Amino acid sequence: MTFASHAFPTVQEAAVFRVGLDDCDKAHLSSLGFVLRRYPAHAVIARQGDEQDRIFVMHSGWGCICTELSDGERQILDFPLKGEIVASRPFEGEAAESFISQTELTAFEAPATALLAALARSPKLAAVLLGAIARQRAILVQHLTNLGRRSALIRTAHLLLELGTRLEMANAAKRLGFECPLTQYDLADTLGLTAIHVNRMLRELRERGYLEFRHGAVHYLNKQGLECFAGFDPGYLRLPG
Amino acid sequence: MTFASHAFPTVQEAAVFRVGLDDCDKAHLSSLGFVLRRYPAHAVIARQGDEQDRIFVMHSGWGCICTELSDGERQILDFPLKGEIVASRPFEGEAAESFISQTELTAFEAPATALLAALARSPKLAAVLLGAIARQRAILVQHLTNLGRRSALIRTAHLLLELGTRLEMANAAKRLGFECPLTQYDLADTLGLTAIHVNRMLRELRERGYLEFRHGAVHYLNKQGLECFAGFDPGYLRLPG
Repeated sequence: MTFASHAFPTVQEAAVFRVGLDDCDKAHLSSLGFVLRRYPAHAVIARQGDEQDRIFVMHSGWGCICTELSDGERQILDFPLKGEIVASRPFEGEAAESFISQTELTAFEAPATALLAALARSPKLAAVLLGAIARQRAILVQHLTNLGRRSALIRTAHLLLELGTRLEMANAAKRLGFECPLTQYDLADTLGLTAIHVNRMLRELRERGYLEFRHGAVHYLNKQGLECFAGFDPGYLRLPG
Repeated sequence: MTFASHAFPTVQEAAVFRVGLDDCDKAHLSSLGFVLRRYPAHAVIARQGDEQDRIFVMHSGWGCICTELSDGERQILDFPLKGEIVASRPFEGEAAESFISQTELTAFEAPATALLAALARSPKLAAVLLGAIARQRAILVQHLTNLGRRSALIRTAHLLLELGTRLEMANAAKRLGFECPLTQYDLADTLGLTAIHVNRMLRELRERGYLEFRHGAVHYLNKQGLECFAGFDPGYLRLPG
């Protein structure tokens, strides 16, 4: 269960673009100028407040997008995963969020203007990119609903089920679980909890026979029961196309 | 301070499109087929789970977009305001959210396919629409950060400052305050609090000399102090163009 074994060589192979683009669309995609870059763990790839001038397609590793508050706290908004796009405010103006690597990370990058160029050139590519942006919005909506209206236990379960499902869609997870390098601090900053509270929630999910999270991997013990318990409906994760 | 006095007659006059579109772009906008519709208060305009086939530009009144949970609870994600676009998942698939009128509401509606058509026809219009979608994402990000990492008092202040700023940008608020038909239940469902807690937070904001919310209107008592207290930086609300 390593990411390397599932690496894709070109941006065209990213999950977001595996939607039946024809040769002409693929040529347009190539012309956008995506370049593969590697970042070490804990690197600031794009900083909140800076002019946002790039879009990214995740190639390997884990990153997070987060808001940084003036008191030094951060709220993690999402973890962009393999094959997914990062384009938080790609059209103009300051980035509302920081994009930070959690592990060593590789990503395809292109100038943000490429997105508008793509829209003008290829309606199919436009639909795919906009669909990907809409899917990320749906993910944010679920994370917001987690924080506002789901219990600490259910929101923990919901997030882990979501991450696993997204990795499965990118062929980067097994049905029985997935590698997850996130710490309890990362989960805490995502779930609006303390790390101690997250620890307690993970223990309870194990004691209830739903999942085990140890040694950097999530193992489902009863995935169907967990999905039912968390009210997890993966419809919002459907890839466009 | 009524909305009617600031009504705009055509969709071209919406704040989102007041960005220097030329005659050609305006002709494209006209050709998208926006039609003005009126809804009574508390009408379900689009329901979570239904095929999302329309985009909206708010014309007057207040609505909310929300997720509805299986236990009957709801999480309000945002209140689309005059001149703003509602296009939660406009490209394909089920709507992740419901769109509900809070008051009597009028909105311009067009088929969602119009959005893709616009993108293909007019790069300027494409940039404006995508910029509007990115702005709404930035608003969601702030609401998520409110829930996860801001205290109940600060998140209440932050939301009210944001709504006032957005209304000002649409010429639908005065500098000293704005009409706000939201109940404490609406605020509770937005802020992840109980209505009683919201009531207490509003009282504290008044007692601290920041704002007063009564008779359906927010009156700033010390707006600058409130912005400072809430760490409110309106940069994320900048309209595209």
